[in-house]
Amino acid sequence: MTLQTSWVASANSAETDFPLNNLPYGVFSTETLEPRCGVAIGDMIFDCAAAEEAGLLDITDDPLFDVPFWNEVMEAGSQVWTTLRRRLIDILSEGFDDQAVAESCLVAQVDAELHMPFLVAEYTDFYAGKQHAVNVGTMFRGAENALPPNWLHIPIGYNGRASTVVVSGTDIIRPNGQTKAPDADMPSFGPCKRLDIELEMGAIVGSGSHMGRPVSVAEAEEMIFGYVLLNDWSARDIQAWEYQPLGPFQAKAFATSISPWIVTKAALEPFRESTPEREKELLPYLAEDKPGLFNIDLSVTMQTAGSDEVHTISNTNYTQMYYSAAQQLSHHSSSGCAMTAGDLLGSGTISGATPDSYGSLLEMTWGGKNPMDLGGETRTFIQDGDTLGLHGAAIGDGYRIGFGSCMGTITPSPKFPA
Amino acid sequence: MTLQTSWVASANSAETDFPLNNLPYGVFSTETLEPRCGVAIGDMIFDCAAAEEAGLLDITDDPLFDVPFWNEVMEAGSQVWTTLRRRLIDILSEGFDDQAVAESCLVAQVDAELHMPFLVAEYTDFYAGKQHAVNVGTMFRGAENALPPNWLHIPIGYNGRASTVVVSGTDIIRPNGQTKAPDADMPSFGPCKRLDIELEMGAIVGSGSHMGRPVSVAEAEEMIFGYVLLNDWSARDIQAWEYQPLGPFQAKAFATSISPWIVTKAALEPFRESTPEREKELLPYLAEDKPGLFNIDLSVTMQTAGSDEVHTISNTNYTQMYYSAAQQLSHHSSSGCAMTAGDLLGSGTISGATPDSYGSLLEMTWGGKNPMDLGGETRTFIQDGDTLGLHGAAIGDGYRIGFGSCMGTITPSPKFPA
Repeated sequence: MTLQTSWVASANSAETDFPLNNLPYGVFSTETLEPRCGVAIGDMIFDCAAAEEAGLLDITDDPLFDVPFWNEVMEAGSQVWTTLRRRLIDILSEGFDDQAVAESCLVAQVDAELHMPFLVAEYTDFYAGKQHAVNVGTMFRGAENALPPNWLHIPIGYNGRASTVVVSGTDIIRPNGQTKAPDADMPSFGPCKRLDIELEMGAIVGSGSHMGRPVSVAEAEEMIFGYVLLNDWSARDIQAWEYQPLGPFQAKAFATSISPWIVTKAALEPFRESTPEREKELLPYLAEDKPGLFNIDLSVTMQTAGSDEVHTISNTNYTQMYYSAAQQLSHHSSSGCAMTAGDLLGSGTISGATPDSYGSLLEMTWGGKNPMDLGGETRTFIQDGDTLGLHGAAIGDGYRIGFGSCMGTITPSPKFPA
Repeated sequence: MTLQTSWVASANSAETDFPLNNLPYGVFSTETLEPRCGVAIGDMIFDCAAAEEAGLLDITDDPLFDVPFWNEVMEAGSQVWTTLRRRLIDILSEGFDDQAVAESCLVAQVDAELHMPFLVAEYTDFYAGKQHAVNVGTMFRGAENALPPNWLHIPIGYNGRASTVVVSGTDIIRPNGQTKAPDADMPSFGPCKRLDIELEMGAIVGSGSHMGRPVSVAEAEEMIFGYVLLNDWSARDIQAWEYQPLGPFQAKAFATSISPWIVTKAALEPFRESTPEREKELLPYLAEDKPGLFNIDLSVTMQTAGSDEVHTISNTNYTQMYYSAAQQLSHHSSSGCAMTAGDLLGSGTISGATPDSYGSLLEMTWGGKNPMDLGGETRTFIQDGDTLGLHGAAIGDGYRIGFGSCMGTITPSPKFPA
């Protein structure tokens, strides 16, 4: 596939994240417009609510865009997803008949504020990057016991907290929590001292499933609506003290950031890649039905408080995952757990083979032992005022399917107890 | 406090779960009525939607009972909770002026089907019963390491799955899952062989909190709307293989049952009791503000497939908890995690000191080693067709604040993969 051309001139560039090939889904507002659904095209947003009112988007009998989130489109089903995308491509392609009407539905991205693109039903975070699991396991349990015995058999995951999933650009308040130094008698309570990121992709479940009815990997693949970048902010010192025996809780509950544009599965189709070769044979229910990963370049940037220099501290790729989102989703349903439109599945931290491709500061600085040099300043974990960013794009022939960025700046902990 | 008398005759008995002192909140339907909010009184239900239409319940400017769940009442705030309860007591007390109108809003419980009383926002399960933690720890790690080092400092909890919280009476489909025998090379996939219950109370969060704004134990106490019985069904064999390092996932995700009537905090006030003496001093943010537990007698019943005999297999009390729901809720928010009206907090399994007061079959049969005798039949874990029930009531002077029952019958696993 090559660049598809649009009458929106800024979309016809090899550099834009949002050519006609992409058409990701977001929610935006302006000084005069209440939050509403829109589609990114070049440096513009196509206002779906306005387009529906103007009669350009007659997809279903009931309106799809009378609400400021994409869950209604998800719930309308995958046939509607296909029809909607075809219609959007028609409208925004060169030569569209009603270009004047369509132009009246465009808003400049610079004039828009972006909001959460969907209501998060529930949030599950996985642990499906092998290099990350090996790195963390080596630090905590030694190289011989790095991978837990179940890791090559189960896409390990845990339930996260949906109420604190926020859109890129939302400031992140440093969490308080209990920590205990190894030599201390008693724990203490206060601001997190080892605040970290986790570079992940988020898969959005668009079609639900019924309680007691597990879904196959092939069915799971059909249920996925799209993908975002996801930063699973982590308080490593709180996590170390709390996570045994029932897993991470407050160390992860304070915030998870996602990028504002849902990149659809359809836009990513040309970039499919298989999961890596299995080191142990998977149980049949987890067999990959078709290539379930995508070739998406990912990077992490860091800008320290008071500096205007942005440092790229990691470069990696989504194909580093050992399990695909479809495999994770099938496993998630395997007990009979009902899945819901709007469920968000974090991939797990995506680390490559070398320190310059790791997906967390914990790994990049090897537990804080090797500070990073950021143009004269150094960092192990995140300080107040630092800004962290995730960035991602699938690179095609003369075009890119961009995710935009997932940004967050850290602000100080509140005093608690007051 | 003694029995408050009502013009609903069946409510004026020391045996009813639902005297005027109680007035728990549920959702019901009949052959002719769509699901709607109601209040249990004796063997009747007071139809709140009908009462609101008849002008008896003019609590707020906007209707509270135009939806079949109690979340709108929760979100209206604690002043409204108080006003509503006062008004319900007025209406249902002996001597109420408009008794004829109120009588027209009564439906017999035998004619009603009960539904989920509220929309579960998110579900969190705690591990705050000390005897349970000691029992499980002893079985898995030995008596010396029974309690994890953090247990006396943190109300340990993990995020559960909200999409599979169901009302009492819903059949529970036996989950499939991965398990691995200690001596096996590879895991296998199939129906759970060690299906269990967990006897818990559920606290329902009625008022939310803001991201980044932890709430004190006193504030948390004010945010709690009411309590239900909660059965955290557990697949012990799946749990054993999956739970390291990130906690229980599919072993708990298939189902959680709750009793249909939300017993309000107001009804339970006469039964407050303090948490047990601290074995280690708590950090100040977790200090108990006022007695946070309630004296609620709890029991577990089991009826095996094909038998009509119901066996009481455990008797215990909610005061066995080491941490209160308010302490759990404050801890839950301590990192800045936003809490939402409709959040459900499982207390953790409530076990007394002796086997006849344990809250799970895992403990009662000590890991399946000591089968229970049920009138000639024996059981370690649950078989298909068995019915398990939780029951609870606070016992006052000539009255009881009953929770009713939380029942579930096990049906066979689906074939998966198909």
